[in-house]
Amino acid sequence: MEETALKPFPNSRRVYEQGTLYAGLRVPFREIVLSRTKVRDGYEENAPVRSYDTTGPAGEHGVREDGSLTMHDIRSGLPALKREWIANRHDVESYEGRRTRPEDNGYLNEEQLLRAYEKKQGRFETYPGTRRAPVRARSGQAATQMAYAKRGIVTPEMEFVAIRESGMAGGASGTRDTASRNSLQFQHRGTAFGAALPKIITPEFVREEVARGRAIIPSNINHPECEPMAIGRNFLVKINANIGNSAIASSIDEEVEKMLWAIRWGADTVMDLSTGKNIHETREWIIRNAPVPIGTVPIYQALEKVDGRAEELTWEIFRDTLIEQAEQGVDYFTIHAGVRLPFVPMTANRMTGIVSRGGSIVAKWCLAHHTESFLYTHFREICEILRAYDVSFSLGDGLRPGSIADANDEAQLAELRTLGELTKIAWELDCQVMIEGPGHVPMQLIKENMELELRDCYEAPFYTLGPLTTDIAPGYDHITSAIGAAMIGWFGCAMLCYVTPKEHLGLPDKNDVREGVIAYKIAAHAADLAKGHPGAQLRDNALSKARFEFRWEDQFNLSLDPERAREYHDETLPQEGAKTAHFCSMCGPHFCSMKITEDVRKYAAEHGMKEEDAIAIGMEQKSVEFTKGGNEVYSIEM
Amino acid sequence: MEETALKPFPNSRRVYEQGTLYAGLRVPFREIVLSRTKVRDGYEENAPVRSYDTTGPAGEHGVREDGSLTMHDIRSGLPALKREWIANRHDVESYEGRRTRPEDNGYLNEEQLLRAYEKKQGRFETYPGTRRAPVRARSGQAATQMAYAKRGIVTPEMEFVAIRESGMAGGASGTRDTASRNSLQFQHRGTAFGAALPKIITPEFVREEVARGRAIIPSNINHPECEPMAIGRNFLVKINANIGNSAIASSIDEEVEKMLWAIRWGADTVMDLSTGKNIHETREWIIRNAPVPIGTVPIYQALEKVDGRAEELTWEIFRDTLIEQAEQGVDYFTIHAGVRLPFVPMTANRMTGIVSRGGSIVAKWCLAHHTESFLYTHFREICEILRAYDVSFSLGDGLRPGSIADANDEAQLAELRTLGELTKIAWELDCQVMIEGPGHVPMQLIKENMELELRDCYEAPFYTLGPLTTDIAPGYDHITSAIGAAMIGWFGCAMLCYVTPKEHLGLPDKNDVREGVIAYKIAAHAADLAKGHPGAQLRDNALSKARFEFRWEDQFNLSLDPERAREYHDETLPQEGAKTAHFCSMCGPHFCSMKITEDVRKYAAEHGMKEEDAIAIGMEQKSVEFTKGGNEVYSIEM
Repeated sequence: MEETALKPFPNSRRVYEQGTLYAGLRVPFREIVLSRTKVRDGYEENAPVRSYDTTGPAGEHGVREDGSLTMHDIRSGLPALKREWIANRHDVESYEGRRTRPEDNGYLNEEQLLRAYEKKQGRFETYPGTRRAPVRARSGQAATQMAYAKRGIVTPEMEFVAIRESGMAGGASGTRDTASRNSLQFQHRGTAFGAALPKIITPEFVREEVARGRAIIPSNINHPECEPMAIGRNFLVKINANIGNSAIASSIDEEVEKMLWAIRWGADTVMDLSTGKNIHETREWIIRNAPVPIGTVPIYQALEKVDGRAEELTWEIFRDTLIEQAEQGVDYFTIHAGVRLPFVPMTANRMTGIVSRGGSIVAKWCLAHHTESFLYTHFREICEILRAYDVSFSLGDGLRPGSIADANDEAQLAELRTLGELTKIAWELDCQVMIEGPGHVPMQLIKENMELELRDCYEAPFYTLGPLTTDIAPGYDHITSAIGAAMIGWFGCAMLCYVTPKEHLGLPDKNDVREGVIAYKIAAHAADLAKGHPGAQLRDNALSKARFEFRWEDQFNLSLDPERAREYHDETLPQEGAKTAHFCSMCGPHFCSMKITEDVRKYAAEHGMKEEDAIAIGMEQKSVEFTKGGNEVYSIEM
Repeated sequence: MEETALKPFPNSRRVYEQGTLYAGLRVPFREIVLSRTKVRDGYEENAPVRSYDTTGPAGEHGVREDGSLTMHDIRSGLPALKREWIANRHDVESYEGRRTRPEDNGYLNEEQLLRAYEKKQGRFETYPGTRRAPVRARSGQAATQMAYAKRGIVTPEMEFVAIRESGMAGGASGTRDTASRNSLQFQHRGTAFGAALPKIITPEFVREEVARGRAIIPSNINHPECEPMAIGRNFLVKINANIGNSAIASSIDEEVEKMLWAIRWGADTVMDLSTGKNIHETREWIIRNAPVPIGTVPIYQALEKVDGRAEELTWEIFRDTLIEQAEQGVDYFTIHAGVRLPFVPMTANRMTGIVSRGGSIVAKWCLAHHTESFLYTHFREICEILRAYDVSFSLGDGLRPGSIADANDEAQLAELRTLGELTKIAWELDCQVMIEGPGHVPMQLIKENMELELRDCYEAPFYTLGPLTTDIAPGYDHITSAIGAAMIGWFGCAMLCYVTPKEHLGLPDKNDVREGVIAYKIAAHAADLAKGHPGAQLRDNALSKARFEFRWEDQFNLSLDPERAREYHDETLPQEGAKTAHFCSMCGPHFCSMKITEDVRKYAAEHGMKEEDAIAIGMEQKSVEFTKGGNEVYSIEM
């Protein structure tokens, strides 16, 4: 299983960039090695292209004597990368922690749990690796990146983020030495909505953004395996992949594999939305093997503990679940504290009522008790728990629209304003916060949604599900939503929660995870380009150059999914020779537009045409002079 | 083959709307029949939803005694729907027409052709149906929809278009009688860029748009099988699917099947981009069976006639090819007359030079002869041919960018301005015109591109390929480009040329055609919603209502791809019972957010909460009052 999930991509090698503030800090990149370009008098090198690598230590491979690859053993998990950084701050304490109880995994008692595990040995195996004692901030203090940032401290996490975000640009800068049309530099034109991107992302810039609450670094101190990453609109747009078993499908194995699979394709964070049995144990396996932040919706597990009866939920059960998950190392919690009692009836006349699972659980509780939810009334206590572990808030949009008809309605916007008020409270307590958003929004309302979020939530990072731009394409909602996601990313959304082709219809399998992640990598990258993120266009340029020069292997390897690109090419032209051919299957060998351009360049060179001259002539000729019936005037000699 | 390509969708029936101006004129729709909704005291009907139907007479099915479906025989083609309309105008003449020559199909002489057909009998069969004598406008007059529109004549074609464009709204209006949340009415909010949409599209409105050149009805008088449709930004956004064999793959059969398959999924027009052998015969099969307009790039065939040597092309060969194809019934021609000699060197320093096949052929010719192309110098004569058959111009963007780096550059924009000048000439001669557009454009430059087109080409309909919003996802370019397509559709683009997952890599097979068409139906529909096209949201609302009420079958049937929606659902929950279950696989039976909304509605009803009250309360409570440490204030009783 492990080797397939994280098999390295062809012509890619792992490289590291060292930290300068912190000794031993090293940031991994995937470097895509390119072949040379044949030019008139020999060859021209093409510098390797660096890619942000979400696989972290899980993506490190050794080589066995027989040439096969080794991978980290998922039974012992990943190394505790951040352990020393955390210890060196001298503000956390190790303690015994909460004891796992049968109900954490959905069993009534120890006996029932043991019987279940015996019966299904292998499928529901207990995580066999080390279980470290949890740590927490001493005496209720904040051990959060925001707290450090506000105090002016640049943490290793921040330096890591700075290198990670800007490393690509440095990586490809070598190509700037080649001729002008081969240059990978670019000039951003057009509107970069809402982004204030620096040329180089420094550790200090990261600190400022985190201190202002404009970015978060989800980084539970009990998830030391996780590599730091930032979610904020002045950084690269991130994507999240949801996984999780449900009451009626999936096993632990499948979920760990899905997590690794999701990060192989580039998921920046993964949410474990498991329901049903073995939630705790599934999560243990996932977190211990996750080099990316893991998010959850704690109320899902809390609900399991009261056997699915929302009205029986209590603050105590919820609180206990928060601590259980914080001690395990969950990096961010979706908490639907903005679902207030007076907002609930606003959804009664909607086309699709309440579609958020968490939102509907809270709404049901509010109605049953005819009072505000414990998430809202105990919000400050929740902050106090989260700050002790540096669990980030992902303030849930429990009243998000579930259809085009309900987009940007009063229920949604009332909740959004409440999320803004809660953000201020969380910030007072130095908690990191992002805001969840919809859902289903037609294109013409997306910008408004983003602007309202920035205004009402004081620029806290926005994290949206899509949005889907039409309701009529179940089976293709990764596409309907990639449209909305790309747009909202451009407008300033910091992280895009993926939607798979199975949305609304069923549970995503491995292939759906791949389809969903790639669709969202596309949306995020399109947004980075539109925002003018420094260096984002380097990869586009390198790929386009490779395409134009018929360097097929480079074209495949630079693409978001090298395996699929190669597979599609080979369907039409399977011969190995076709991958060095100076034509492609679309036109065949005698009919190639790219080939003709070589003639154009030769012509321009021979006729001493510089680009500027050509433009000048073009402008002169702009006005087409036609004389009825006569052809003479058309034959303008240059 | 035929039955699979045009198999009807479940719970769909063919209905017709009659014309009022023209007797016998009837416009087909697909009507999706819905099940009832269970309400407190019985059932509530859900009115059927009408869908624009691109299958036309090809989508008419009879039923055999054994229950199997009959379909039109592709060996005898479709009925000549428009024959009488054309004849009744008394402005065309039938004539013998050009004789087909061996080189039309890529053979040197009759003998070689016969031998080839004998050897590959079946695969390269000659079209066996009736070959009608061609018609053309009498004595060089214009038999174009634009000519009639300018003279104030509302043609049957225009009435057909008016019904087709507005029929959907009428079809679903029955549901307006039900309760407010079930209403399928909607209020458009947000910005409808560039669209000036009337509430009801009348035949007179269609005439005005065609007269102004703001819309075209591609409608070659030699393609009487074709149903009229309009391309213009004040109508529904249309999509085109490209098919066509190439020198190294495909057969005639496959191409006819692909055409039928493309229209089954909703392609509004189909371009036959065949190269290599049997171009003429492939086209005959396609046109005789096509209820949608067929477009071509005549220079592809002309190039075959000179064995691929661009520099040997002549005006005479090109002219002869135009007549050959016009007589066959091609509805629009891509003509790259804007590729002018002075613009060619502007592409020399591009990242990806010239990527348009047609553009590069013309550029090569210009360079070889060091003069302007015959497309440009003979443009007026081309107009005179096209107006005699009502072949619409699709003025090609031969210098479109092939990468993000080259987007909206001087070469592209210089050509665009020339296309505008050519448009004016074509309009003088009453030719219908649309303008082709890119290609590869990052999101932040899409709007600029659309605005320049409207300005420089005097609002002639824009017809773009995508655009792709990033270069780094070969294998997924239907998605990278659906993002750009949806946006440019919203900004005013009239037709979107699809991109399949095989773009840049290989030739699309049947499944790629389906993926490409659906991705583009999504983009076009998202654009229609954003533009506020009257009635566009009806289908979204009907589907969302069905989803919310767990009417699974209705949800599947209302979707753009009912087969895939059902298949994905059944992968997780294959039992037939699951399709009437009040839950879905995502949450399982005990954990359903949609179910909880029923409680919300009950609560709102019991507590006498009207929507307005709820909003009022919400506004009052907007400001969250927190008191440090105390919980009392949180427990606000309503």
